Amino acid sequence: MEKVTCFRNIGELIQMQSSGDVPRLARKTRCALLVSQGRVTRVIRESEVHRQDFFKVIDLQGRSVLPGLVDCHTHLIHAGDRKDEMDLRMAGASYMEIHQNGGGILNTVKATRQATEEELYDRARLRVRRMMALGTTAFEIKSGYGLDLDTEKKMLRVGQRLRKNLRVPITLTYLGAHAAPKGKTIDQYFEFVMEHLPEFRNLADGVDIFCEKGVFTAAHLRRLFLHAKLVGFHQLRAHVDQLSHQGGCYNAARMGAISCDHLEHITPHDIRALYLSGTTAVLMPGATFFLGGKKIPPVHALIEAGVTIALATGCNPGSSPSCNMQTVLGLAQSMYRITPAQALIAATYGSARALDSHKDFGGLLPGQRADFMVLKTDDHRDLFYCFGENFVESTYSAGRKVKDEKDPVF
Amino acid sequence: MEKVTCFRNIGELIQMQSSGDVPRLARKTRCALLVSQGRVTRVIRESEVHRQDFFKVIDLQGRSVLPGLVDCHTHLIHAGDRKDEMDLRMAGASYMEIHQNGGGILNTVKATRQATEEELYDRARLRVRRMMALGTTAFEIKSGYGLDLDTEKKMLRVGQRLRKNLRVPITLTYLGAHAAPKGKTIDQYFEFVMEHLPEFRNLADGVDIFCEKGVFTAAHLRRLFLHAKLVGFHQLRAHVDQLSHQGGCYNAARMGAISCDHLEHITPHDIRALYLSGTTAVLMPGATFFLGGKKIPPVHALIEAGVTIALATGCNPGSSPSCNMQTVLGLAQSMYRITPAQALIAATYGSARALDSHKDFGGLLPGQRADFMVLKTDDHRDLFYCFGENFVESTYSAGRKVKDEKDPVF
Repeated sequence: MEKVTCFRNIGELIQMQSSGDVPRLARKTRCALLVSQGRVTRVIRESEVHRQDFFKVIDLQGRSVLPGLVDCHTHLIHAGDRKDEMDLRMAGASYMEIHQNGGGILNTVKATRQATEEELYDRARLRVRRMMALGTTAFEIKSGYGLDLDTEKKMLRVGQRLRKNLRVPITLTYLGAHAAPKGKTIDQYFEFVMEHLPEFRNLADGVDIFCEKGVFTAAHLRRLFLHAKLVGFHQLRAHVDQLSHQGGCYNAARMGAISCDHLEHITPHDIRALYLSGTTAVLMPGATFFLGGKKIPPVHALIEAGVTIALATGCNPGSSPSCNMQTVLGLAQSMYRITPAQALIAATYGSARALDSHKDFGGLLPGQRADFMVLKTDDHRDLFYCFGENFVESTYSAGRKVKDEKDPVF
Repeated sequence: MEKVTCFRNIGELIQMQSSGDVPRLARKTRCALLVSQGRVTRVIRESEVHRQDFFKVIDLQGRSVLPGLVDCHTHLIHAGDRKDEMDLRMAGASYMEIHQNGGGILNTVKATRQATEEELYDRARLRVRRMMALGTTAFEIKSGYGLDLDTEKKMLRVGQRLRKNLRVPITLTYLGAHAAPKGKTIDQYFEFVMEHLPEFRNLADGVDIFCEKGVFTAAHLRRLFLHAKLVGFHQLRAHVDQLSHQGGCYNAARMGAISCDHLEHITPHDIRALYLSGTTAVLMPGATFFLGGKKIPPVHALIEAGVTIALATGCNPGSSPSCNMQTVLGLAQSMYRITPAQALIAATYGSARALDSHKDFGGLLPGQRADFMVLKTDDHRDLFYCFGENFVESTYSAGRKVKDEKDPVF
């Protein structure tokens, strides 16, 4: 007999249904979720539960169950921290000023180069476990704090170990083009990245580039993407138009990027390009919030134009140290003025689509991975209403409860 | 022998020292905190610990210890919730529009009138325990969801029971003048509040009034405060200039208010009045954030003018359902662009001053209550750096550990 686990006594079950490409939040009450071999098989009514014969029955005590949150943009593998920059920013220094004075990303590069692979792995593993306890069940992780061959590869090997050992969906991205290392110009370093790109083909699923004034240009982006396609990378991503409008979004979309990320300064022209290319717009309110930015991406224009939006932490030691996707949901509602349903769709279906995995997870639909979070209450809106508290009682990955590693010192 | 408890192995101890009226964050490392009869007696060096003889020694494992957070503005006693307003607001309705259509405060009034005293007490007790687990060790609580004699008194009796049973500092405020009940004009209801004010003298420590367009005017405020002083209330508070400039702040300060709260729309003239009267400015970034307000109080102008600022949740079911003072700290840093030190001083010394209790608690100084929180890490800046996660490992009230009631369903 097939081993089916029945999660019964669900007060409210949220699924993300998509007819065509338009997702919709569907809510069922008093039901049970059947899981076999780590995947959802069916949803039945609670009243039907006694007529079934299950391998295991788990009583969820009337709580709310939602698809696990998907964090489709993180830099979670890194060493060191950048707490000192907080006071510098409050004293008026901008993110790019700190960067240009040798702080910022280059501080993290220094610490990450010095760290052993074991140290990096232990730190990242703790972070991933903490994020899972808070409801996240799938991740994208970028390299980009090495800016040399050894460290970039070390970061990606750590990502592969995380994927293997934690048995959780992790998409890896080679972000060689994150900044220029000390002693090299942007152009010199870019040629180095281009030359060695093929070496990363077996370490990462995709490539990314930080397109910004003083860093890489839209011309660099076009060259990198073309080369990446030839080398065989399927997923092209880009940090674009975050601090100023550089044309990165338009060019990335035209080149078939799977996601364009940040987008604070995009224009209607760029939105049209995203729609036509089917590129997902990845929004990170945590970064805007933490840096005190006034500029918000044109979220409603994106939604109205039919662009799929995704939400992510952008987790990184400089502009968004928060790892908590629940915080991102609350920030998105308040800063973008979107509804709880819109925010949840973006953080599940939308983010999964940015990883080309929306068939595999993000909806809690039959056939998909049984990745879900169980709330402390029976109402998913509490995630938004009482912003700032942790509402996740437990997280399940492929139907297995994520071991409770609450409150580790980190 | 005097029973002294020694909290040893403190990685970092934060105290709020004030010379004159200017508070300063003082940081000691590797030390121990001595507590007797619920109060701080001394701070000694860690190396001195073995030479002492203590009733009890508690090892804090190198963690960071800070004064407990003080929440000097809450409406935490109430029934019902107002989650439905979230979608109304996202659809464009303003807080005052919802209020004027019979929603908002009046919804909570209906639910609070219907609730029994026991129900109200149980709900409020759970909320206070949850807030204490998150680091808050002293509270102000307002009535204002009865708008009649019975319910207003019921709310304040609940507050007195909380104070007695939880043995935690709670300041109670009679906020009869919160809104007009159904069927009465503002003027009619105001006369009712004035007539019955003496009946609340033994139930509350102070009075408060919601001064706003469409609610009460600055003229009402002046009359209420004068009457309250004659009746013998010592603490005059006011919700002023939150959604529009109504002159409430200026008038409240001139009448000797101990705190003026919200202050989004105050002018330099009002700031001068606050300074001259020694009134504490209570800021609630959570309310601004949750309502999606663009207008921020002139925080830096207040600080530069020498006005003491305080931070509070404003905890209420309509505009700020969050009960978490840690969230308020992070919001304050990001929205007001103040440093971690400034935010912490405001949430401890400043809030205690708004309750006229800064000699009693808020600084973790010798002679003061031993109200403190122990962080999960050794760096108080983590509260700000990783915004959105709970960094409080445990909370102590008068030297006793607050029982862990984590994760209750609420």
